[in-house]
Amino acid sequence: MKMLHFAVLFALLFSSSSHAADFCVAKLKGAGTPAGYACRMPSNVTVDDFVFTGLGVAGNTTNIISAAVTPAFVQQFPGVNGLGLSIARLDLAPAGVIPMHTHPGASEILFVVQGKITAGFISSSANTVYVKTLKKGDVMVFPRGLLHFQINAAGINSIAVVSFSDPDPGLQITDFAFFANDLSSELLEKSTFLDDAQVKKLKKVLGGTG
Amino acid sequence: MKMLHFAVLFALLFSSSSHAADFCVAKLKGAGTPAGYACRMPSNVTVDDFVFTGLGVAGNTTNIISAAVTPAFVQQFPGVNGLGLSIARLDLAPAGVIPMHTHPGASEILFVVQGKITAGFISSSANTVYVKTLKKGDVMVFPRGLLHFQINAAGINSIAVVSFSDPDPGLQITDFAFFANDLSSELLEKSTFLDDAQVKKLKKVLGGTG
Amino acid sequence: MKMLHFAVLFALLFSSSSHAADFCVAKLKGAGTPAGYACRMPSNVTVDDFVFTGLGVAGNTTNIISAAVTPAFVQQFPGVNGLGLSIARLDLAPAGVIPMHTHPGASEILFVVQGKITAGFISSSANTVYVKTLKKGDVMVFPRGLLHFQINAAGINSIAVVSFSDPDPGLQITDFAFFANDLSSELLEKSTFLDDAQVKKLKKVLGGTG
Amino acid sequence: MKMLHFAVLFALLFSSSSHAADFCVAKLKGAGTPAGYACRMPSNVTVDDFVFTGLGVAGNTTNIISAAVTPAFVQQFPGVNGLGLSIARLDLAPAGVIPMHTHPGASEILFVVQGKITAGFISSSANTVYVKTLKKGDVMVFPRGLLHFQINAAGINSIAVVSFSDPDPGLQITDFAFFANDLSSELLEKSTFLDDAQVKKLKKVLGGTG
Amino acid sequence: MKMLHFAVLFALLFSSSSHAADFCVAKLKGAGTPAGYACRMPSNVTVDDFVFTGLGVAGNTTNIISAAVTPAFVQQFPGVNGLGLSIARLDLAPAGVIPMHTHPGASEILFVVQGKITAGFISSSANTVYVKTLKKGDVMVFPRGLLHFQINAAGINSIAVVSFSDPDPGLQITDFAFFANDLSSELLEKSTFLDDAQVKKLKKVLGGTG
Amino acid sequence: MKMLHFAVLFALLFSSSSHAADFCVAKLKGAGTPAGYACRMPSNVTVDDFVFTGLGVAGNTTNIISAAVTPAFVQQFPGVNGLGLSIARLDLAPAGVIPMHTHPGASEILFVVQGKITAGFISSSANTVYVKTLKKGDVMVFPRGLLHFQINAAGINSIAVVSFSDPDPGLQITDFAFFANDLSSELLEKSTFLDDAQVKKLKKVLGGTG
Repeated sequence: MKMLHFAVLFALLFSSSSHAADFCVAKLKGAGTPAGYACRMPSNVTVDDFVFTGLGVAGNTTNIISAAVTPAFVQQFPGVNGLGLSIARLDLAPAGVIPMHTHPGASEILFVVQGKITAGFISSSANTVYVKTLKKGDVMVFPRGLLHFQINAAGINSIAVVSFSDPDPGLQITDFAFFANDLSSELLEKSTFLDDAQVKKLKKVLGGTG
Repeated sequence: MKMLHFAVLFALLFSSSSHAADFCVAKLKGAGTPAGYACRMPSNVTVDDFVFTGLGVAGNTTNIISAAVTPAFVQQFPGVNGLGLSIARLDLAPAGVIPMHTHPGASEILFVVQGKITAGFISSSANTVYVKTLKKGDVMVFPRGLLHFQINAAGINSIAVVSFSDPDPGLQITDFAFFANDLSSELLEKSTFLDDAQVKKLKKVLGGTG
Repeated sequence: MKMLHFAVLFALLFSSSSHAADFCVAKLKGAGTPAGYACRMPSNVTVDDFVFTGLGVAGNTTNIISAAVTPAFVQQFPGVNGLGLSIARLDLAPAGVIPMHTHPGASEILFVVQGKITAGFISSSANTVYVKTLKKGDVMVFPRGLLHFQINAAGINSIAVVSFSDPDPGLQITDFAFFANDLSSELLEKSTFLDDAQVKKLKKVLGGTG
Repeated sequence: MKMLHFAVLFALLFSSSSHAADFCVAKLKGAGTPAGYACRMPSNVTVDDFVFTGLGVAGNTTNIISAAVTPAFVQQFPGVNGLGLSIARLDLAPAGVIPMHTHPGASEILFVVQGKITAGFISSSANTVYVKTLKKGDVMVFPRGLLHFQINAAGINSIAVVSFSDPDPGLQITDFAFFANDLSSELLEKSTFLDDAQVKKLKKVLGGTG
Repeated sequence: MKMLHFAVLFALLFSSSSHAADFCVAKLKGAGTPAGYACRMPSNVTVDDFVFTGLGVAGNTTNIISAAVTPAFVQQFPGVNGLGLSIARLDLAPAGVIPMHTHPGASEILFVVQGKITAGFISSSANTVYVKTLKKGDVMVFPRGLLHFQINAAGINSIAVVSFSDPDPGLQITDFAFFANDLSSELLEKSTFLDDAQVKKLKKVLGGTG
Repeated sequence: MKMLHFAVLFALLFSSSSHAADFCVAKLKGAGTPAGYACRMPSNVTVDDFVFTGLGVAGNTTNIISAAVTPAFVQQFPGVNGLGLSIARLDLAPAGVIPMHTHPGASEILFVVQGKITAGFISSSANTVYVKTLKKGDVMVFPRGLLHFQINAAGINSIAVVSFSDPDPGLQITDFAFFANDLSSELLEKSTFLDDAQVKKLKKVLGGTG
């Protein structure tokens, strides 16, 4: 039949032209590149590569920050590879806090799903602080690379969903960068002006040496 | 005092070097550029430019699609200008549907806040359909520029938060592109293979002429 | 001789610094990356990797759309990998039409080589239609990701050359996305408002199931 | 009627979210930005901003290079602003040549519309020459920033269409950069190793001083 | 004369096609855009816009960090606007230190001009420290957005030149972000785990309130 | 102890989310991609991958240009892969010159470490020359893709450090592109208007054939 011919012809005409244009589900085992991971063959991709179900469960907040971060970055959610965004869930128990941190390569939008969160970021130009207590349904944007934090401001558990402008936004928590490694106390104190006692105390807490 | 000197000197040394690097809150009145809107002066920016409170309220779904989209794109939320992402809220009444559409310049991640949503997208290469019914807490990614849709799959109202990899993702609903303008029925039928009766019926419903 | 020394010295000084900067001819067999295919070694590259001769021959238009598309995308023309553009040839017999479609990741410029073509695109903002009948030598630009079409407007064969702002622009023909796969009629009708009879008719023509 | 409601609601819901996402027709009078020109208001844009008719006419080749270049870059064709590509027409009389040149910020694809053209480019790594005589319908890609040239290889007028991966590709003809300005012969000779007689001869021809 | 014709014709043919492609010297008075400042007209640009002479003079290091940073970012050096890089000079007296900081949007390469510098950065993944004492002529790269520092390791003044992958790299010194503004001690202590005494001491030194 | 718990929990929570976000040290043996080389595993990376010591030694200038270029591009300095910048050292003996050249994909900033250098670039729009004699400490920026040169202007050795806006900037020296390969004299003369005697003389000097 003539009309069927149509489908067949189109399939032939365009068959070789498009497989990589649509998406590039990450082959996580191989080496990455500056633009992300290599692509899996489309024939090995299913809808489950584009769906992530891990954010439906609360993270365990029985820890000293009373908080949990559940990421759906490219390493957990290979379907976002090359697509310019990713997502995570924050759980904050009543005393919960996500400590001061940066995402070296991404901006972030936070959406409050439940509770109240006091969030803020600090600009680099004049060290201006932008801080606000957000209620359920509010969103706040944190520009890329700037220091920011989130603290529970409700008497109950708070939940947020955070989106990032990169499949692999990175996360540098200042306390961990300073105190949870073998950077010598001498160099750290010279470069932060923190007192030796303070440095030694937090190194001990966070497992740092030197 | 010597230490205070420190702050003053740094302020002087770096005062001129950084005001645009951090963020670029949109001056919406002026003309845009290919990279986004011009920036407001940082001195005129407050935390409220980085916070959007409109997503906390359900959209009005008493319409024929039984659905509502509440965007926090750069036009509503000027703080995201230049930051590579934006966000919106979807409300779907029990019969709600977000019809087939594309975002010409952005990928999207959907997070189900409440209810169940059947979502899908269609690849360009082999017209493969990737469809899944998502429950509360699930996320799904829709690669940039591809046709996709969302349909309520719960007996109750469903709510989702959708993030985009662009402050101004655009939205092209196929039905509106086809039937809600003055594109002549002749050209439309030739370029879509839809029957004249179908075209005329939907043009009438959606306000199209020609 | 002293001057010959010059060439030798330069070759030594710079020999290791540049092989990837110039071009990156695609190694099509391997996995792609979000930025394109891996590069072949320059020593295995010849001028023929940068030349494509397939556009000199008319495509076969004896099909129901009376049209043919001959692409020189990265899969056919590996020399364009990473270079930000590609090209194709359109052949339109007197009744020829390139149906409504998008390129998910690329803008397009059409140049009429022979005949006349009525072309148009639809904006996403207000569903505005931009349509024009182009004669030989005219060009028209179709912004990235937007629905557009081309219809022969001459009594004779028309030919066009189309350039894209990406080596792998993708192609999503709405009719095929809707009717040439296994997307269920129920979901399709809910998300497009098309009548069941229309859907079943075109599914049959285009080979769709469900 | 209920269905009409649909169109009205959507228009309201999305009215503010998309005007800049689709295109950004250049406001050429104002200052440019690193990403291109400012956008004209969509309400002032018509289909003619996306159509350029100047390439349908042969350029005047009665000059010493027996060739003409007719550009449809952003300055002539404001619709391509921000869209990542542009186009031009080359006319080469039987003795025509487009002299050695680079486009500082763009790759190029040449399509031979009529005649034969000998084209080539030179890689930076090993100064390798990639040269080929192209016949009607052939295409060749010139990677961004590299020296290349085109010479008529037919006994008749040759015509080509050239596409660029940038709306404003720039054009630096080596002869003009060397000999058509006030760069002193001393500096030019030191930095090119050309003889003084050669420099003075070409400066005279091309209007250079110094 | 025929050859002179050549220059005139080329000037006519290409006159309108290239002014913005080459460079975009910043018009610093106007509003910026996400891609940088608007361009000055090329007719108002001179070689001095591309030359910066302020790095030839040592910065004043008679301050508590015994160090000085002299930037040639876009605000001081408008010629780099849109060109993807900038530069600065570091002067470190014998006790000099550039405290822990990030550049939110740029990578950095440091070149030691004189003396010795102990420099390091901390990765975000495992808080790994990469630290090294660099001598004259050594270079070190600091990946974008990561915490890093530089400390004089010579008994004499040390000098370095630092390049950035952005005309406006930004600079966020952790001590200033924490202690030189009005962020409340309560929020700061909750989000950094620093002791109240430490916070109050450094707030006093650096001029912070709250 | 409760606080130690903190470090352990964070390590678990974020362990899989960040390894590629920070850096991507080049695996030089494998094939490149359009975005750079594949990444080495972070566990195989040490601080020495981010440090390059080769620029501390003067290049050998006992050659006919009395100059040397010592690059620290990605091939020599794998730590810069994907980071958007690289660096090199120039040594110019009293008669030294870096001949006319372009970097096809990068802008450059030159910093004079010692001596005096006369440097210039030529714009593509009106062939305008921007030339200046730079003294110690001066910097000059050369916009991407444009012809430029550097000539010693001191009676002594001059040294400069040059930074690039790309890890792999490429280098195309016009003399070598013209005269140090097998491009036929006929094509070269037609495309450059240089005299046959001049072409043959420089081909002989630079090792060209044809």
